[in-house]
Amino acid sequence: MNGKIRIAIAGHGNLGRGVEAAIEHNPDMSLAGIYSRRPAGQITPRQTETPVHGMEQLRSHADQIDVLILCGGSKEDLPQQGPELAALFNTVDSFDTHARIPEYFAAVDPAARDSQHTALISAGWDPGVFSLNRALGEALLPDGATYTFWGDGLSQGHSDALRRVPGVAGAVQYTRPAKDAINQVRKGGRPDLTPQQMHLRECFVVLEDGADAETVREAIVTMPHYFADYETVVNFISAEELARDHRAMVHGGFVIRSGTTSPGTTQVMEYSLKLGSNPEFTASVLVACARAVHRMHGLRQFGAKTIYDIPLGLLSPRSAEDLRAGFL
Amino acid sequence: MNGKIRIAIAGHGNLGRGVEAAIEHNPDMSLAGIYSRRPAGQITPRQTETPVHGMEQLRSHADQIDVLILCGGSKEDLPQQGPELAALFNTVDSFDTHARIPEYFAAVDPAARDSQHTALISAGWDPGVFSLNRALGEALLPDGATYTFWGDGLSQGHSDALRRVPGVAGAVQYTRPAKDAINQVRKGGRPDLTPQQMHLRECFVVLEDGADAETVREAIVTMPHYFADYETVVNFISAEELARDHRAMVHGGFVIRSGTTSPGTTQVMEYSLKLGSNPEFTASVLVACARAVHRMHGLRQFGAKTIYDIPLGLLSPRSAEDLRAGFL
Ligand SMILES: NC(=O)c1ccc[n+]([C@@H]2O[C@H](COP(=O)([O-])OP(=O)(O)OC[C@H]3O[C@@H](n4cnc5c(N)ncnc54)[C@H](OP(=O)(O)O)[C@@H]3O)[C@@H](O)[C@H]2O)c1
Ligand SMILES: NC(=O)c1ccc[n+]([C@@H]2O[C@H](COP(=O)([O-])OP(=O)(O)OC[C@H]3O[C@@H](n4cnc5c(N)ncnc54)[C@H](OP(=O)(O)O)[C@@H]3O)[C@@H](O)[C@H]2O)c1
Repeated sequence: MNGKIRIAIAGHGNLGRGVEAAIEHNPDMSLAGIYSRRPAGQITPRQTETPVHGMEQLRSHADQIDVLILCGGSKEDLPQQGPELAALFNTVDSFDTHARIPEYFAAVDPAARDSQHTALISAGWDPGVFSLNRALGEALLPDGATYTFWGDGLSQGHSDALRRVPGVAGAVQYTRPAKDAINQVRKGGRPDLTPQQMHLRECFVVLEDGADAETVREAIVTMPHYFADYETVVNFISAEELARDHRAMVHGGFVIRSGTTSPGTTQVMEYSLKLGSNPEFTASVLVACARAVHRMHGLRQFGAKTIYDIPLGLLSPRSAEDLRAGFL
Repeated sequence: MNGKIRIAIAGHGNLGRGVEAAIEHNPDMSLAGIYSRRPAGQITPRQTETPVHGMEQLRSHADQIDVLILCGGSKEDLPQQGPELAALFNTVDSFDTHARIPEYFAAVDPAARDSQHTALISAGWDPGVFSLNRALGEALLPDGATYTFWGDGLSQGHSDALRRVPGVAGAVQYTRPAKDAINQVRKGGRPDLTPQQMHLRECFVVLEDGADAETVREAIVTMPHYFADYETVVNFISAEELARDHRAMVHGGFVIRSGTTSPGTTQVMEYSLKLGSNPEFTASVLVACARAVHRMHGLRQFGAKTIYDIPLGLLSPRSAEDLRAGFL
């Protein structure tokens, strides 16, 4: 296929659709196909000519795919698909259950290593480029403190929790970073902050007919784990407003490292993202990572990898010469 | 030396002193010595026990040094020292004459390669971590535009230019990013901006006895290349104020990538630095890079390298397992 990197997508949810869009912006890549557990008739690709296949056909298509991007969910899909597919393909995924990453790595690594594939796990923005900046912050400023703030961002888990409250017909929840906390950290302070002090939660709720607003608000703000420990604002809106103003899966956040290099000399580094679409940005990262994976596989760097293992120049379509001359 | 990475410093200016300070924050490193072209008596190390040697002794100390950090100036020193010392040691430098990087790379690369050394060139913040973010921005958001803003920062070159104006007894110049321009870009706009539209120049000037303020101001704001094309503010201060308030070599800036992943969906990534001391932060980057160079040398990755070639996990003192478990 005229030298392009042949990418395929396993799983066609938000992330899978984002990968389709991202490939269109990368002329050195082509989309070989979309693979799903659902019948092909239920999948509508962005480009009508894109082949759609059943997931079970992957095994026989190994010679048509350079890198397979796994777009399944982290909770149910990837723990099974990750090791299985890394035995057949070079892969990239966005596994984001932070606490289970070592376990997931341990499952994917031998599968990839034994079959001489390169499998990049937990790419995206968090885990992903945020992780990069957390490690970089500590390495460059060892005497310091790192803060990750999330938001403004739509939280899927918290929106789901709202929808389970009796009297709620529809809802979304935004996580917002606490401005005071950010400002303290940006000035070079190193306050002790809990997640609750760093974030607030803003809810937009559509009431069911006849539901009592005060009762619903009380049920929300006292909900343990999700809202009780946070400053929580509840706004009531109409179904039309919900549909019109709250569809975008916005997200983002800040990784701030505040450190000292000699007594009294403060240094602050900050990495921030303001994402119009969380899955589309995540997908863009996965696609750039697929380029690096393809190159690392060519260099016989087999096994499971993370973003810490990638020389970042490999993410760019440019040659090392070009990067040195134009970007350094 | 009990397994520590043995670092030495070649050249003892601002950066060399910063490297001394940075090593104190990195318990896996030790400072083997400071090498200078000046007589040892003119060099005062931070720790009295640090050995100070003449530069010509480097050749006979090769077995005592794992990585030599070159702290000479980019204009006069590094073009000669870089290739010469990369033939004898693993090196890290901060060569920052952007237009001459390809030429410098071409001089250092064969020297390092032939002698089986690893030589990282042009590390620091710009070039350095800013360069990383410029390449990352384009790779992750191919449909977009990148903006580098500098400041608030003390500019050595512009301060020197001020001091050459007749009637000026002392002066410093700060480059400041233009707030309007930053805000446009942060909102996801992609304006066409010249460096002059992105920055302003603020000068703090001490007049010589009897000098006319208006004449001096006019000479400054009309100075070609340096000030004529910029919005320039000139403040007159006393010699005491200059000494008291303007000694810190503050600097910093912003790399902003504004891009689109599908029609109407904007994504903005921003990396910013607010540096209490430009040379101390640069030195901290060089020291973390020395750790990576030591490891890459162990992996037999010889030749000249740039920050694009380093898997960033190698900058961290932590193991890959630790990074995966705690930072990803
Ligand atoms: N690292 C990061 O920064 C980051 C950021 C965002 C998300 N993520 C991760 O990405 C994962 C995927 O996110 P997502 O938003 O793409 O999840 P999603 O839309 O729920 O899709 C997950 C999977 O569910 C199936 N699916 C999608 N729509 C379906 C439908 N209408 N009916 C039945 N099945 C359907 C698809 O598999 P089939 O096509 O096989 O049915 C798809 O691969 C998340 O679990 C999260 O862990 C990571
Ligand atoms: N990449 C980046 O982000 C970045 C950032 C900042 C700076 N830099 C680069 O770093 C380079 C060095 O910066 P710097 O601030 O350390 O420069 P500097 O203070 O002028 O020192 C440069 C060299 O001059 C010599 N020197 C220092 N003080 C001296 C004195 N009092 N009398 C005579 N010689 C003296 C030293 O060599 P000897 O000990 O051998 O005499 C020293 O290595 C700059 O040229 C710049 O290119 C890069």
